[in-house]
Amino acid sequence: MKKFSEKYDAYKKKIDKRINSLVVLNEPKSLYDPVNYILSGGGKRIRPAVLLFACEAVGGDIKNAVDAGAAIEVLHNFTLVHDDIMDNADTRRGNETVHKKWNVNTAILAGDNLIAIAYKSLLKTKSNRLDQIIKEFTEGVIEVCEGQSYDKDFEIMDNVTIDNYLMMIQKKTAKLIEVSAVMGAIIGGGTDEQIENIRNFAINAGLAFQIQDDLLDIIADEKEFGKKIGGDLIEGKKTYLLLKALETVKEKSEKEVLENIVKNSGIKENHEVIIKQVQKIYYDNGVIDSAKEAVETFTNKAENFLNIFPIEHKNLLIGFSRMLLERNY
Amino acid sequence: MKKFSEKYDAYKKKIDKRINSLVVLNEPKSLYDPVNYILSGGGKRIRPAVLLFACEAVGGDIKNAVDAGAAIEVLHNFTLVHDDIMDNADTRRGNETVHKKWNVNTAILAGDNLIAIAYKSLLKTKSNRLDQIIKEFTEGVIEVCEGQSYDKDFEIMDNVTIDNYLMMIQKKTAKLIEVSAVMGAIIGGGTDEQIENIRNFAINAGLAFQIQDDLLDIIADEKEFGKKIGGDLIEGKKTYLLLKALETVKEKSEKEVLENIVKNSGIKENHEVIIKQVQKIYYDNGVIDSAKEAVETFTNKAENFLNIFPIEHKNLLIGFSRMLLERNY
Repeated sequence: MKKFSEKYDAYKKKIDKRINSLVVLNEPKSLYDPVNYILSGGGKRIRPAVLLFACEAVGGDIKNAVDAGAAIEVLHNFTLVHDDIMDNADTRRGNETVHKKWNVNTAILAGDNLIAIAYKSLLKTKSNRLDQIIKEFTEGVIEVCEGQSYDKDFEIMDNVTIDNYLMMIQKKTAKLIEVSAVMGAIIGGGTDEQIENIRNFAINAGLAFQIQDDLLDIIADEKEFGKKIGGDLIEGKKTYLLLKALETVKEKSEKEVLENIVKNSGIKENHEVIIKQVQKIYYDNGVIDSAKEAVETFTNKAENFLNIFPIEHKNLLIGFSRMLLERNY
Repeated sequence: MKKFSEKYDAYKKKIDKRINSLVVLNEPKSLYDPVNYILSGGGKRIRPAVLLFACEAVGGDIKNAVDAGAAIEVLHNFTLVHDDIMDNADTRRGNETVHKKWNVNTAILAGDNLIAIAYKSLLKTKSNRLDQIIKEFTEGVIEVCEGQSYDKDFEIMDNVTIDNYLMMIQKKTAKLIEVSAVMGAIIGGGTDEQIENIRNFAINAGLAFQIQDDLLDIIADEKEFGKKIGGDLIEGKKTYLLLKALETVKEKSEKEVLENIVKNSGIKENHEVIIKQVQKIYYDNGVIDSAKEAVETFTNKAENFLNIFPIEHKNLLIGFSRMLLERNY
């Protein structure tokens, strides 16, 4: 795996550098201070990483893909800023969220501007298929909005199924990973077959990634995680784990704990006590294991789409999907 | 002027039809109900109108420009939805604003999605200069965000100059009119000279339009206007009129009324009484006339850029800038 992590680190540096070059000394400060704050707040840059790996996998030169990589990361940061308002989140990557550090209006505008900054970076891409690239990107913005709407709808619904959930996370989370990988493959000059395989790889890796994220909300180390454990439960998020538990758990007192969360669209009081109860329910009823299995299943499914690529590139993409699986923060 | 208004009405219908075709029966309803609500809420469609007139003025065929026209109108609607949140506005075009009818989260997401829907429509444009068109459009989104930031900054500043104000409205209001006209001229196959003249026409017409809007906040008929008179004063907006009055008014009690508004970043109580006082101050001190003159000056400046165009098209564009000037709602 050494080769993967070395390459990933090198690519991350390239992307960070390009992102830093996007916004320089711009006025008004009320807009660009929060924009720079979120863009320089770290992040694993996983979307640009898969974009660059995909570009190389089809035989492309990554130097043509860095602007698109920066673009997708900036777009991702737009979703974080606006989602954090809607989810009323106080911290992000261990830092205060934009709407907490400034205010909601500032966060709305900073997010809006990030969308445009993302397009501006994307437009620098040298490719004779730029129209197709911008179309994929735009479809990504639309589906991310749809996914976030479903996610908020589901918080106050009591009949969400795991199929509904998978449809939602495909839009909310997997779509931008898909768009990243597909844009990389297009920029790299991939064939239709290569692009479709990369697309399916990324969708499944993205689904695995979101279920892993749901899992981390329950089992992660709070300090490394950068936010409070159980936030999804407090917000009434219909996570894979909660839906699986609602399906699986039969014991009356346990069922009551879960159903109260659904009924109240989250946890209204005694947060810590109830989060601990739910953790125990999840462990005792195999929900944690089931989520881990789901992550593995989608990851395997993803990797099965990689057989058409040269072994070296296939291994890098596998390295990428394993990184999503193995991260513990 | 009959020719202008007939043509304008016909173009407005074309645009409305195209906008109606953009969003059809889409889920989730929590996202697309507000999107459809704002898109079908009327509006004068002035940005698409100038886009189509500009396309024709350089000898282009408007059928290639309708998608871009729909795009700029959808983008404009995004700015309305998000600005109304930030300005805490209850009504828009006589209807409830999106965040009042639904909630702030819904309005944030609907606005975000409108940006993407706008790009999606724009991407349908058939032009071998599509890259340039998307660049203009994207620069428009960025400057609109900057303009809105300045506008909000200015609300709580006590040293805003008329030059600051003009810079702000050039971004907040004139930019999208400029982008509209420029995109029309590019799609129509205009020369660099034609594009630059159209650009300067639109910038100046846009500045006139915003000053007229400031004026209407004070002198309009409330019912036709579709919103309360004096809203800008209540919000502490640094309008052309307020800044001009601060420069002009010498009488002590009048000066105090104005300075209290600046000090309080708006009107905190006795709204109606103070709005009436300010109206009187504006009329008595020639501020209303001065604003009307500024509107006329920018309109004349705009029209001087039209001499290179065939007389028929020049007259249509003059018709457009006069419509902005003469509207009384």
